[in-house]
Parts: sequence; C-alpha cells; structure tokens
Amino acid sequence: MQSLVKASPEICMTSYILHKVNLLIRSRILAGFLGLGLFLCSYDSGFAKERPSISMSKAEGQAIRENLDKLPLLKKSFDAYKNAVESAMLQTIELPPPGEAGGYAHEKHKQNYREMQMAGVLFTITGDERYADFVKRMLEQYAVMYPTLGPHPRSFKQKPGRLFHQTLNEEVWLVNVAQAYDAVYEWLTPEDRANFEENIFQPMIHLFSVQYAEELDRIHNHGTWACAAVGMIAYVLDDKELVEKAILGTRKNGQGGFLRQLELLFSPDGYYMEGPYYIRYALRPFFLFAEAIERNEPERKIYEYRDGILRKAFYATAMTVYPNGVFPAINDASLSMDIADIGPTIAGNLSYYRYGADENLLAIAAIQDRVILNGAGLKVAEDFGNGENVAPLNWSSVELRDGHDGERGGLGILRTGQGREQTMLLMKYGVHGKGHGHFDKLHFIFYDQYRTVVPDYGFARWINMEPKFGGRYTAENNSFAKQTIAHNTVVVDQASQNSGKRQQADERWGERHFFDGGDGDVQAVSAFANDAYPGVDMQRTMLLVNDPLLEHPVVVDLFRLTSESDHQYDYPLYFNGQIVTLPDGIKAHADQLAPLGADNGYQHIWNVGSGSSDTDIRFSWFDGNRYYSVISAPSPGTEVFVGRTGANDPDFNLRSQQMVMLRRNAANHLFASVIEPHGYFNEAREQTRDARSVIQSVNIEGSNETASVITVRGKRDLQWQIMIRNSETASKKTRVVFSGKEYEWEGNYKLIRQQAAEEEMSKK
Amino acid sequence: MQSLVKASPEICMTSYILHKVNLLIRSRILAGFLGLGLFLCSYDSGFAKERPSISMSKAEGQAIRENLDKLPLLKKSFDAYKNAVESAMLQTIELPPPGEAGGYAHEKHKQNYREMQMAGVLFTITGDERYADFVKRMLEQYAVMYPTLGPHPRSFKQKPGRLFHQTLNEEVWLVNVAQAYDAVYEWLTPEDRANFEENIFQPMIHLFSVQYAEELDRIHNHGTWACAAVGMIAYVLDDKELVEKAILGTRKNGQGGFLRQLELLFSPDGYYMEGPYYIRYALRPFFLFAEAIERNEPERKIYEYRDGILRKAFYATAMTVYPNGVFPAINDASLSMDIADIGPTIAGNLSYYRYGADENLLAIAAIQDRVILNGAGLKVAEDFGNGENVAPLNWSSVELRDGHDGERGGLGILRTGQGREQTMLLMKYGVHGKGHGHFDKLHFIFYDQYRTVVPDYGFARWINMEPKFGGRYTAENNSFAKQTIAHNTVVVDQASQNSGKRQQADERWGERHFFDGGDGDVQAVSAFANDAYPGVDMQRTMLLVNDPLLEHPVVVDLFRLTSESDHQYDYPLYFNGQIVTLPDGIKAHADQLAPLGADNGYQHIWNVGSGSSDTDIRFSWFDGNRYYSVISAPSPGTEVFVGRTGANDPDFNLRSQQMVMLRRNAANHLFASVIEPHGYFNEAREQTRDARSVIQSVNIEGSNETASVITVRGKRDLQWQIMIRNSETASKKTRVVFSGKEYEWEGNYKLIRQQAAEEEMSKK
Repeated sequence: MQSLVKASPEICMTSYILHKVNLLIRSRILAGFLGLGLFLCSYDSGFAKERPSISMSKAEGQAIRENLDKLPLLKKSFDAYKNAVESAMLQTIELPPPGEAGGYAHEKHKQNYREMQMAGVLFTITGDERYADFVKRMLEQYAVMYPTLGPHPRSFKQKPGRLFHQTLNEEVWLVNVAQAYDAVYEWLTPEDRANFEENIFQPMIHLFSVQYAEELDRIHNHGTWACAAVGMIAYVLDDKELVEKAILGTRKNGQGGFLRQLELLFSPDGYYMEGPYYIRYALRPFFLFAEAIERNEPERKIYEYRDGILRKAFYATAMTVYPNGVFPAINDASLSMDIADIGPTIAGNLSYYRYGADENLLAIAAIQDRVILNGAGLKVAEDFGNGENVAPLNWSSVELRDGHDGERGGLGILRTGQGREQTMLLMKYGVHGKGHGHFDKLHFIFYDQYRTVVPDYGFARWINMEPKFGGRYTAENNSFAKQTIAHNTVVVDQASQNSGKRQQADERWGERHFFDGGDGDVQAVSAFANDAYPGVDMQRTMLLVNDPLLEHPVVVDLFRLTSESDHQYDYPLYFNGQIVTLPDGIKAHADQLAPLGADNGYQHIWNVGSGSSDTDIRFSWFDGNRYYSVISAPSPGTEVFVGRTGANDPDFNLRSQQMVMLRRNAANHLFASVIEPHGYFNEAREQTRDARSVIQSVNIEGSNETASVITVRGKRDLQWQIMIRNSETASKKTRVVFSGKEYEWEGNYKLIRQQAAEEEMSKK
Repeated sequence: MQSLVKASPEICMTSYILHKVNLLIRSRILAGFLGLGLFLCSYDSGFAKERPSISMSKAEGQAIRENLDKLPLLKKSFDAYKNAVESAMLQTIELPPPGEAGGYAHEKHKQNYREMQMAGVLFTITGDERYADFVKRMLEQYAVMYPTLGPHPRSFKQKPGRLFHQTLNEEVWLVNVAQAYDAVYEWLTPEDRANFEENIFQPMIHLFSVQYAEELDRIHNHGTWACAAVGMIAYVLDDKELVEKAILGTRKNGQGGFLRQLELLFSPDGYYMEGPYYIRYALRPFFLFAEAIERNEPERKIYEYRDGILRKAFYATAMTVYPNGVFPAINDASLSMDIADIGPTIAGNLSYYRYGADENLLAIAAIQDRVILNGAGLKVAEDFGNGENVAPLNWSSVELRDGHDGERGGLGILRTGQGREQTMLLMKYGVHGKGHGHFDKLHFIFYDQYRTVVPDYGFARWINMEPKFGGRYTAENNSFAKQTIAHNTVVVDQASQNSGKRQQADERWGERHFFDGGDGDVQAVSAFANDAYPGVDMQRTMLLVNDPLLEHPVVVDLFRLTSESDHQYDYPLYFNGQIVTLPDGIKAHADQLAPLGADNGYQHIWNVGSGSSDTDIRFSWFDGNRYYSVISAPSPGTEVFVGRTGANDPDFNLRSQQMVMLRRNAANHLFASVIEPHGYFNEAREQTRDARSVIQSVNIEGSNETASVITVRGKRDLQWQIMIRNSETASKKTRVVFSGKEYEWEGNYKLIRQQAAEEEMSKK
C-alpha cells in the first residue's frame, strides 16, 4: 500500500520521550485516520518538499532512467547497483548477532546497509516496488532486532554501538539507511514508518545525539559521521530541531556540529591535517550531509560556507593523489587507498555538480569508473560520455597550507610531465596530525613511472585482517611506522622527532619557506623544522629539475642541519626494487645480521650492508623499467648503511622494505643529493640501456645561514650551479661568498646551467 | 635500377675460392652484360621460383596490403613495422665498431638487422622503393665494414663473431638480413648483389659453415641458428649445395644439421630438455628455416618430418605457459619471458598456418598482440578479427615426456579452471638439461590468481644489465639458483642432488609413475627420483583437487623418502607475499640473523625464523587478493625454518625471496601437506574474509613401498581419504593395511570424500 502522506508522524515532536509515547499511541491505536492532521502539522514545522529529498529527487530518478542507454558510465553504475541488489533479493535476509570488527556479522551488517541504500536508489529510478519492498523487509527485521541489543560487547577503547563495536560504524549504517528510508518513505504505510522510527531510528538518534552527544560535538571526522547520520535522518523525519543540533552542535550554539567542523577541520586551502587517507573517508558524510542541507534548506548556502570550504576540501584531497589516483601514504595510511573509494566518488561528483565542470574531475571519474546515482552523477556521466575525450589526470603543482588558520606549515607537491609520465615530489612540513600523526617532518615521497620510487612506509596495519591482531594497528605501528627513521627525513641522534611524544608534536609544526610550482624547468619547495629536535635546526629544500641533457626529471635535495654541538645525523632513503650498484667501500654483510639500533624504530631495520666513504656516494637500483641513482656530495667519513625492515618483528607484521642511509657526525651539515631516473630495463624483452647515471657528482661550494650553493656535474658536459636562500629576507638579491668566490642571485633559489666546456673557455 | 634477373652471379659455383675469383671478375668487369647468361645458368641449378621466396611471396605482400584496414591485428603489426622503419630512416645509418655484449654497439647492430628485416617486409607489402633503398644503403655500409673486421676481441668462452662477441648473434644477424636481402634482391643491381655477397654474405657463410663447421653440426640450439642462417641465405643465393649442408650437416651425411637437430633436440612429445625459456629463442630459427624449406622445396615435407615434430615442438612450448602467457622458469630462466616473444610469435603463426586452426593459438595471438607479416600472420589476423570472439587461453593438463626417446621422465602440468581463474601445478621429473640445468628433480611450481604463488627462483642473472657482471650469469647462479635448496623439492643432508655435478646429473633423470590430467575433480601426477641422492629413494605425488566445500582448488603433496639409514630431509616451499600466521612454536628471530647453512645454496638464505613443532604445522601468507595456507602432517620434532635469500651476496645480486622449510631427521619419511588458497583481501577497498583455512589437519595413516594413505580434515565436515600407489604393479587393485585398518582401491590413486558426520554414523 502506498501512502501520499508527506511527513512522518513525529514531525511536531522534538523530545525523544514525548515522541516515544506519541508513537506508541499513534502507530498502534490511531494510525490510519490521523493522516490529514499529520500532514497539516508537518507542513507547518517541517521542510516543504517532495520526497525523496536528501540525495536525489524523483525528477532526477526519471532523468537517470531516460539516460541509461545513452551514458555508458551511468549505465555501468546503475547495473552495478542492480546486480548487487537483485542478487541480494535472491538470498534470505540475514541479521546475524553483532560480532567483532572485520568478522562475518560486522561485514554482513555493512552489506545490509549498502544493499538498502542501493535498493532505495533503484526504487527512485525505476519505480519498481520490489526494491522498496526489499528495504521494508530488511527494516522490519532490524526493527525486531535493534531494541533487543545492548551496548556491543566487543568495543575496544571505542564508544560501543549496538550493531557494531563502535558507534562510528553505526552512524555509517544510518547515513546509508536514511537515504533508503527517504526513498521508500512515501511508499511505506504509516504503520511501517511508526514501527521503524520507534524501534530503529529514534533509538539510534538518541544514542548519537544524546547518549554520546560529546561525539557529535567533537571536532573530528568521527563527529562528522554523527552529524551527518543525525542530520540526514532528521531531514527525512522532518525534524527541524534535530537538524539544528546536527548543524550547530547538540547545544545549538555553534561550538560543535557540522559548521564548526567545517571551520576547524580544514586549513583555508581545504587541507585536512590527518592526511588524505583519513579525509577520503570523512568526505562522504561531509558531502552527503551538505547535499541534504542544500536540497532541504538551500538558504543555508552550505556549499558557499567559509568561501566554499567543501570545494577546497575535495580538491585539496584529490590534488594529493599520484597520477594513478592512489593517495600518498601520509601519517597512518595504507599504500593502496585511492580516489576510486566511495567518499571521493561522492565528493567528486557533487563538487562537479555544485561547483562546476573540471577536466581533472572527469579524469578522476575515469579512474573511479562509476558515478553516484543522482543528478550529480548524471551530470558527470553526461560530460564524460564514452570517455574517449577525457584526458589523463593532470594536476599541477600545489602547496596546501596546514592548520585551520593556514599558519602551520603545509604540504608541498611538485609535479612535472603529463598523465602517466608525470613525476611527483611530495614534501610534508605541516602539523603532526594528532593520534594518527607520524614523526616525519620534512620527509618526502618521490613518484615516477607510475610507482612510488621513494615510498613512505604508511601504517603498520593489515586492515580488517583478523589473524593480524584483529585487523587493528599492530604494535609495530608505534614502534616503527610512526618513528622518524621510518620516513625519508633526517634522524638526529637516533631518536624520533619530539622524542616520539604526540602531545608535544601536536604543538609544533613545520614552517613554510618558499614554494615555486610554476611552469618552468625548475620547481622548488623549501621549509624549516626548527623545534623537532632540541638545539638542532633543520631546513630541507627540494628541486624538481628538467634538463635537455637528461631523459627524466631529477630530484635535487638539500637537507641542512645546524647546531651548536655535534650530533649524529642519519639521512635515510627508502626504495623499491633491486640494488644495481653500491658505493665504493660498501658491501652486503655476508653471514651475520644485526639491527641498525635498539629503539626508536631502528630495532626493526636489519643492517644488511655498510661501509664508509670519503668520496662521492653513488648508489643505484632499478624498479619497474627504469634505473635510479642517488648521487650524494662527498663528506669525509660518511658512513653508509643498507637496511631492510623486519628485525624484532616476531609475527612478521612488517613488510620487507629496503632503505639506504648516510650517516654523518657533525654540528652543521648539509646532505646534498640528486636522485636521477635513467635508462630502461625490460626483462621480458631482454632490453636495456643506460644503466649508469648521467650525473656524476654533487659538490658543496658552501652552506651557511644565508645560503647554500652546490655544483652538480655529469656526463655530456652537464653542469648546474644551484643556489638556495636559507632564510627569509626583505632584499630581492642574495649575495654570498664561499671559498673566495662570490655568488649572487635574485629570488629564493637559482639554478644556472653551464656546460663545463663553456666554463673552461670563460676561464681563459 | 631494378633488375629482373632471378639468380645471383655465383649460382653455378660451389667453392668459396672459385666464387671469390669469379665475383671479382664478374662484378667489376663484366657486370651489366652478363645478365642473360647468368639467368640461364641459374635456371639450371637453382630453385625455380619467384622472389621473395624464403618467408613471404609477392602475392602475400599484396594480400596483406589489401587487408590492412579490415584486420586490426594485421594493421597494428604493420604500423609497428612502419613506425620503426620510418623513424630509422630519419636517422643517419650507424655501424659502430663492435663492442661488448649488451653495450651500445652490440645493441645497435641488433637494431640494424631488425630494421633491415622490417624494411624488406615493408618493401614487399607496399612496393615503396624507399624501403628497399634503406636496406641497400645499410648493406653498403656493412659491405665496407665487414671485411675490415677480425675476430671479435671480447668473446668470453664463446666462438667469436666479427660484429658480435659470439657467432650466435652474428647468425641471428644473418637470419634477419637474409630475409631483407630476399625481399630486395630483384630490386638491386647485379653490382650491388655482387658487392654484398662478396663482402658480407660469403665471408659469413664461410665463418659459419667452414671455419666453425662444428657449431653448425652441433646438436644444440646454437647449431640451429647456424643451420638457419646458412640455409636461409643459401636459398636466397640459390646455392643448393649450401642448402644441403644446412639440412644434413656440413658433411652432408645427416650426422649434423637441421634434420638431425629435429631428431635429437626434442622428445617425441616435442619437449625440449633445456625448458621453455631456451626453446622459445630457438623456435625462431627452427620455424624460419622450416618455412624457407617448405617454400623452396615443398617436396622435403619438412613440416611432416618426424611425425610433425615442429608442431609438437611449438605446442609443447606453448602448453607450458601460465594462463597469462609467461613461461614457467625451468632451469636457467627469467621469471618474465613470455609467449609474446618473437620466437613463439613466429612459431605460433606458422603452426596455425601449416598445421591448422586452434582456438588457443588465437588466445596466444591476443597475448602477443601482433602477427608476423606474411601469409601465416594474415591467416591468424583474419581468424582473430577484432578479438571479441577469442576466448582466453585455456590449455588442458598435459604430460610431456623428456629425452629424445621419450624415456627420460618428463614434465607434468595439471590445470583446472578457466582462463584467468585457472590454477596450474607443474612438476618436473625429466632430464637435467645440460649446462643450463638445475639440480631440481621433483620440484614444483604452483600458479593461482594470475600469480606464481609457489615460485621457482629462476636464474641468478640480470640479463643485459651491464653493471651486474656485464649482464652475464652472476656467481650466485651456480652457488644458489642451480642448487637443490633453491627449488621446491626435498634436500637430503643439506647437499644438492647428484652432488651438484652436472655431468653426473646429465646421466640421470626422473621416472614417470603416473599422470592423470583428466576432467575430474581430482588430477594427479607421481614420479620417482631414485638416483639423485645415493641410498635415498624419492617419490613425489601431487594432486590438484576441487571440492564443493572449498572455494579454490587445493594442492595435495606427498613427498616420500626411503633409505636404509638416517638422513636430514629438508622440505622447502618458496612463496611470495606477506606472512599471516606462523605455526605454533615458531617466531621470527629478533635481533640476530645467520644463514641456514654454509654451502650448497644454504649459505645464501637467511634463517629469519625457526622453532620446532610436534603437532600439525599450519603456515599462512597472503599474496594478491588471496590467502594461502600450508597444512602439514605432524611429525614429532619437526623443525620449521622461515628463510629469506640474500646472505653471502656481497653485491646484492639475488632477489629477496621468502621460503618456509620443514626439517626431519629419519630414514623413511613422508612429507604430507596441503596448500589451500582461501578467502579474499583487498587493501584498497579494505575488504577481507576467510583469512583462516578450511582445511585443519593432514594425518598420515601409513606409508610403505606399496602405498601411502593420508586423511585430510577440515571445517564444514570436510574429510578426504587419499590413497596413493607407490610402485608399478600389474594388478588393478591395491590393498594395504595400516594400524589394523585395511585400505583397498583400484588404480594408481584414490581420493574418497567422506563427511565426518557420515563416518560417525557408519561407526554406530
């Protein structure tokens, strides 16, 4: 039986208690002849609207139906929904007793909410009542089970839900089911609605907005899920009061809730301090709730809020990806999470719809290979067509300021080249990132050839893998993955930054020096971290350089350390692939291995090879179809180590990962290196060339508080003079004298190409 | 100027000396007015034919031209040729002084012959004289350079060529250039031809068939290149005498030469003892020369020779590939060589053309993504169409007998499942394989999920990678890759089979016991190796089992060792991916590593974890999107080791490869194990299920000279009784009693599925 009643029975109520009493009366006694009164009541206090209203309209459903055969991406997305739901409808609906994270029951309840959400969408598009009936039948079972459940017994330091071990998952359940309920609302009988609201939705709302009100008010991505869950169901239930709580916090004073989260969780550039892995998950509630607000209360202009912060939030996330769409592993993060995840898909489609067309968003749609099924997805699918005219993803370089005020360092991303052949260099110098933060200031990632050539380890976790510590973070996440030595940044005295103390690290951040992501052949980023180690100032300057004498862009890295006293400086570089050549004097250890150290992450790295070098350090490996060489400036007595993770790891929780490390004992030191990709190797075709680098040496002309100057030399008469300004200064020009030679340039940095031959001639 | 003269000036001559004198006279003095006489002369003694004749005809060229736009695979192949040659024609022709293997000069001369071959083909197809002119101009430079060259200075234990460090490469040069010369022959002037023949071809023929006659007569794939080079140019030069030498050996007595190679290099099933990596290279001269013979002397019926041995040779090679077209690494071999290489492409197209259509050959053409440009490639391209109707590669199980007489063991390949989802189990029990052989009898490879789940190490070589020992085999090829411990087979007393002595190993081979590659749910292979270790008999029986209670096919492995005295038996299993769970009592070593042993390859494996176990041994890892568990029968005091290659490898020449190893000290022992793929893990989507195996235990009921009986038990009441016959016997039935229980069955093996519950019931 279908109903045309537009609002639910409880729309005039705001108190949960009153509501429960009322529901009882209305649904069981009065239901059936109160329709008109309810309607009038709702019309007064609710949102004048057509249903469904929170993520798509009937008109959008019809437009999708009419365009299915014209738009391949739309059709593919629709078919995926249809196949999943049709297959689900062949099975018996199953609601297992709640179980542990990653276990069968956990996964089944996740599957259930996904299936309901999809069935709701299919009902709106097709009008086929089998889909509505499927949602109804599943909700009927939840209405029976939910009231019987107490707090989940297996919560682990989290606030327990009832279906799930933490409320977070339960909020995700509601975000999905609110959409399903919105879709079938009118189709359901008042009795159905009363049943579901009494036994499922109101108890959940109570849990999220009353019992755990502090979670909803928390400025944290978990808070966003709470706001979205409560706010989205509130729109469906036409509960203005509840909507206010979701938007302004449970005390409705703006100190918590959705708007406050939009204020504080993002930097003015839209960057989210925990990094892309975390925000891609939270983009979903941010955008789904924003879309519900926009559709129900456009006067709130939510998409314009804080100068369009939602747009910036999506772009700042999307612009961090590697050219293949995978997110760089910043802080606790997996190495494989990508832009094709559901959060970025929703956010990408809605950004395109609400903020306007963008070629790169179509390129992302190609990677996602699907659209969401509403007007936004329809628009993307229309512009995408058959994809033939969609260019590969091609973001430009970008610096994203960190901190809600934009004054807490940032993330610098340099890019050169197009699409698949894009090279990317990422340097991190922002805030710590709270509980998921790593002690990794000034670390970098180098991406080339569709691979993370110089990778970050990411988190030490086998997510959802039950035999691996229940899928939770393993002990090695703290003892290794978060430690400074797990990252491509200098470790002082074999200790982690800020002594590995999170609270201390949260109060400190990197300092932006300069960033040049322009179109030239040279791009650069430079930043300081002067309080990560007591008494040691650090500055890293990285250049991404194109040169006609070189086949691929190269990285120039100047890591400057200054102190009043001597320290041990360890410069690690992680790499994937096979070692090709070692520096002179370095050999693998033959028949005995020990870890590199005893703590701070060193205990997890086997010292597989070492030696010392007084001359140029050249180390090379190959990965994929390319060779890579690191060429470092000589410095007498430099120790070189080759390492591999896996020591002190009784359960083999760590991946086996290789690194090379230079060690210097000094007060002041400049690590000056070049990373050059070169040549070609194809084992299957047995072809190779240029296994040796073009660049032969890096020499430090001088380095002080004013500037650093190095010379890079190579075959084919390659010669670069690179000059870096080491401090902020008002004057345009920098002048410095090293070894009697004067260097002068304008701007923050300068790279002068001079053929050795020319230099010879000029000396005459 | 084009010439219609059909034969070259020297066709009446057979002696090299006479020929040189004549050439001098004719080409420099008489050329231009001897045309008719030459024509008559040639007509008498040469092969009546149209040119080109050795690999394609003018008519085929025309047919290709006419079909280019209709057949995408043909067009793509043609375009690749055209792009390569057009690009080459924009460059200055360059013939560098000969250099070392893998170096610039080496690669350049290879590029030159490829470009000439392609230009010749393009000339035949298009008639565009620019292509012919390109061949001519390049040959003119070779005609200047070649006479100036002495033996190559950088030969390394090989017979030196002049352009290359070994004659092998020079023969490949001639195989290619013979085709180019054939294509432009008529277009050239008699002076051109005289010049090229005098200065290039005749000296090369002399080198290959006179100076190094023993190479041409050698029963070895290098000999095949010599035969093909000499024979193919002989057809172009219309030199019947030379053709005879190529086919029957330089003494024309059939003791050497092409036919003798066809006799002795392949087993009656077409298997080549060195393995697919080597034969895929030699397939090229085998088929190119055969095709030249067929086209010029069809009366020789070369394709029918030895019951169609060429067909068998190709199929036996192609049928070893993994479902993705990559060759299993048998003996010295890379892990990546595949069916898309040029040799298998030529052989595949010609097999299709000469022996008839085959769906799997079209599937292979899809992997190759190209065809050769002649009538054979045209035929494949026609049947391939746009590829839409070509099914994925789907070979069935096959046993390939080894040894020229087929009596020297073999290679057993079991397959189940379709295309991408095919599981493959390969066991090797043939001959040693001479210089490239590994001491690996009874070893196996397990392929699942488009991955080598239980891999072989392959060779220790970075082919053509100059900084890695000049691209040659590294020292670790002998010290590790060839040793028994580098393979998935039992090592006795920590020594390699046949004491690691090749000559001894060449005299011994495995013994086939039974092979059942039928369509049933259970397939099996069993073989003996009774002389690999003195006083120890070995039998391995492997089953590939499908069961409705299991998601994927599983491997059952029974490795039986019998001896009069106690030995140390090491059962290693290599794997890729991440360890998930360890057997009880096994832990990784925390802070100190040592190699597993001192020699025979053990010195190269770090002992990264160990312990001992008296109960069921369960070990699991994940790889790709799947978990894998090994469940082994308990045996008190079994030592378990986890290893990783890399010890005693000063230059990091070895790949880092993981293994697990069970060790038992006993006189008689049966290693009884199951390898079960299970569940799913997708890190990017954070989805997983069934991280624990279904199979829980393997128990040995008994094992003796008659039979072995084991019981496999698992969740879901899975229970299998597996009975294996351990010796040849005339009777159909086998009867054996273990622990008072009688087992009786028909045939070589039997797997009885019994639900535990049913068994319980039957006991009542």
